[in-house]
Amino acid sequence: MRGDILSWGMRETLAEWRPAVDEAIARVLPRDPDEAYVAEFFGDARYEYDADALAEGLHDPVWDLLDRGGKRWRAVAFLRIIEGLGGDPERFLPYATVPEILHNGTIIVDDVEDGATLRRGEEALHHRYGEDVALNAGNALYFIPLKVVSRNPAELDDETRLAVYEMLTYELNRTHLGQGMDIHWHNEDGVNLTEAEYMEMCACKTGCLGRIVGRLAAIVTHQPPAIEDALADYMETLCIAFQIGDDILDIEHSLDRAGDFGKAFGNDIHEGKKTLMTVHAVENAEADAASRLETILASDDTTDEMVLDAIDIIQETGSLSYARERALDLAADARDHLVDVPLTPDAQADLEEFTRFVVERDV
Amino acid sequence: MRGDILSWGMRETLAEWRPAVDEAIARVLPRDPDEAYVAEFFGDARYEYDADALAEGLHDPVWDLLDRGGKRWRAVAFLRIIEGLGGDPERFLPYATVPEILHNGTIIVDDVEDGATLRRGEEALHHRYGEDVALNAGNALYFIPLKVVSRNPAELDDETRLAVYEMLTYELNRTHLGQGMDIHWHNEDGVNLTEAEYMEMCACKTGCLGRIVGRLAAIVTHQPPAIEDALADYMETLCIAFQIGDDILDIEHSLDRAGDFGKAFGNDIHEGKKTLMTVHAVENAEADAASRLETILASDDTTDEMVLDAIDIIQETGSLSYARERALDLAADARDHLVDVPLTPDAQADLEEFTRFVVERDV
Repeated sequence: MRGDILSWGMRETLAEWRPAVDEAIARVLPRDPDEAYVAEFFGDARYEYDADALAEGLHDPVWDLLDRGGKRWRAVAFLRIIEGLGGDPERFLPYATVPEILHNGTIIVDDVEDGATLRRGEEALHHRYGEDVALNAGNALYFIPLKVVSRNPAELDDETRLAVYEMLTYELNRTHLGQGMDIHWHNEDGVNLTEAEYMEMCACKTGCLGRIVGRLAAIVTHQPPAIEDALADYMETLCIAFQIGDDILDIEHSLDRAGDFGKAFGNDIHEGKKTLMTVHAVENAEADAASRLETILASDDTTDEMVLDAIDIIQETGSLSYARERALDLAADARDHLVDVPLTPDAQADLEEFTRFVVERDV
Repeated sequence: MRGDILSWGMRETLAEWRPAVDEAIARVLPRDPDEAYVAEFFGDARYEYDADALAEGLHDPVWDLLDRGGKRWRAVAFLRIIEGLGGDPERFLPYATVPEILHNGTIIVDDVEDGATLRRGEEALHHRYGEDVALNAGNALYFIPLKVVSRNPAELDDETRLAVYEMLTYELNRTHLGQGMDIHWHNEDGVNLTEAEYMEMCACKTGCLGRIVGRLAAIVTHQPPAIEDALADYMETLCIAFQIGDDILDIEHSLDRAGDFGKAFGNDIHEGKKTLMTVHAVENAEADAASRLETILASDDTTDEMVLDAIDIIQETGSLSYARERALDLAADARDHLVDVPLTPDAQADLEEFTRFVVERDV
């Protein structure tokens, strides 16, 4: 991330909490699972476990991915919300791993579904470990966070734990709806979706993980429903802005590299991904340009010239600046959701800063 | 299944309940999801859902799979246990879909992980709908059953619902451990596992879905822990026997087709799958034959002659009959777990019949 767009408080918050988050992840998913861990996590074997299979098939690949980077900002946002609400971040630290582990599970599975080759600058996990190992590891990460709830490290009462399970059930079902919408459009030749449908896809696919951050923080600290909703909406909106920011970065990076053929650029256009920009451009460009853009997105054999042409259409239609404006609107909207949440001023400032970070970051 | 090995009661039970189970599945996963369903299941859209994406990406592929067959025996076993314990199967019918939906989710994902081409005599889902659609549909089926619990159709109290969530958390984490062990060995060249490890893999991968059947039936009808454990052990043991029965069938079908080259046969040996029979044969065959068997299993280019050689080694080492004996032992063991469960005599007879069905079926 660009140092200059981050206030000191925000940088400090991320730097302060990241190692603690990784330690908390290691408590539920150790780098080297030993027999004691296996017996505690899975119960006594009926016959005999193969701990090597667990280490090589789950713990090694996941830590390979985690050690490549990631700011753990979902976990840090969770902890900052807890702290801002007057809760004890240490007490709830294990719960910070819930959205973070889920997030890493989804990216492993997404990479298989998208046929991605790279993740965080290295081979995607299914290329390095095989599709079978990567998929099972990704799917295992969907259920490990539930174990955090059943281990009950903060000694929550039954009603609170039930609320956590029901919340996760609701949000994780919506996550798969969002991913399903994304896949569905990706497999269609034309751009047959509305802006509202695109936004809903982001709200479900990316937003639900954010909603989990906000709602989990509210549930474990016993906030009233209005505060839980406000925090869910704050995080959801932040995540939609983040997703649009991601799509903008893909085009911006392509602009930086224009002319530098031979390097990978314009990944989203190569992949035929539908984004707010392509939806806007197809709706607003001249009929001829709109149809050319759809053809390029549908092509299985996209040349660099075609990518440049697509980017030109997007720029000439004002779709890049339109997307930037929408992301900024969403960031402002996210901040509005915080107004009635009883946060400390420091936490409020940090959480507002998050909304700037997600749209102004350059990585 | 072979009619002659099934008592009338068992056939009647399966035939009686199957349509009701499919109707119950359709209530949580309708064939044609309409707007009312979407709003109830996912809540109001923030922007706008794409119901087509849901239908084509999830409901159509899943019903394609369900309509190919399957006896829904996990659901029927659940209902028979409920009835045998004096509960009302109608009241708990929605919960019968939990193991059934989970089972179908795992086979969609397994087929991707195993690179399978066929499922129930037709194209595997990832071949028909694409890997992205199939995977997301399979994964969605992991979370839809949790929705049954949160919809709470039988008006269970909070404590009972919490127990259901915790049980599912525990068993679904173990499922992924089992699948991880299976994948790990599959990717190794030699046969480096013990019989106890193989049995544990079955207990986790296949057995956990069975345990869910037994434990869910016990939890929703408020059985004491000893009865819940007995039903879990009954179902787990039954499922291990089922898995070994599956592996035996693969070899037996190959024997039927020996000489009939050109037809697919010996799938497990082609795939290099580690089974109780190959583990037993490698441990007990002459060094030369054992090493030949390992070479055949590790080969990426297995000829029909190699498959026949592998089957010869398995037969000559007595591994096929050894596996049959173990499956029968397990079936007997499963029946023993029922002894202290307060079931009606009819249900007891049906559930004992299930243990024969899983090892003596020919499909």
